[in-house]
Amino acid sequence: MIGIVATLSIKPEHADEFVAMFLELTAKVREEAGCLLYQLCRKREAEGVFVVMELYADQAAVDLHMGTEYFKAFSKQVGSLVAGRPVIEQFDAVTG
Amino acid sequence: MIGIVATLSIKPEHADEFVAMFLELTAKVREEAGCLLYQLCRKREAEGVFVVMELYADQAAVDLHMGTEYFKAFSKQVGSLVAGRPVIEQFDAVTG
Repeated sequence: MIGIVATLSIKPEHADEFVAMFLELTAKVREEAGCLLYQLCRKREAEGVFVVMELYADQAAVDLHMGTEYFKAFSKQVGSLVAGRPVIEQFDAVTG
Repeated sequence: MIGIVATLSIKPEHADEFVAMFLELTAKVREEAGCLLYQLCRKREAEGVFVVMELYADQAAVDLHMGTEYFKAFSKQVGSLVAGRPVIEQFDAVTG
């Protein structure tokens, strides 16, 4: 199982637009085979900062996610809303 | 719903001991009312660095978690294994 924590900095004036776009994306991603968690979270103390918690069954599920047309379209579209480059951290889930 | 990302830096020589302790903790935490996710992950490129992805139904569930005897005992016990202070970030989950 693979975990991803993605941190996204959005221009505060575009935060509502971003959330609407992201929730549309979320509905699609959660239908992917091997996607176990896809949850947008919002930082309290820093306006415009979001994290996405993600869990996937394996690397194939991550690759499938990254390769979908809707994820590629989202990544392009979000470009005009961001205040900086996203920080994507990938982890191995420890399952004992 | 509340999200927490906790980053823990463990002395590499104690990483196996830490994982065993943490998985014991995990089994208990996952039984808590209002705990929706409690997943240990391990950073690939940085030996000894772990993140915990956590989701709780609400603040009461977070408080319940933090107040359990086993969590307090774990927090004390882990002190001798860590290489630095933990970084705990709390978020509001965005549920649309």
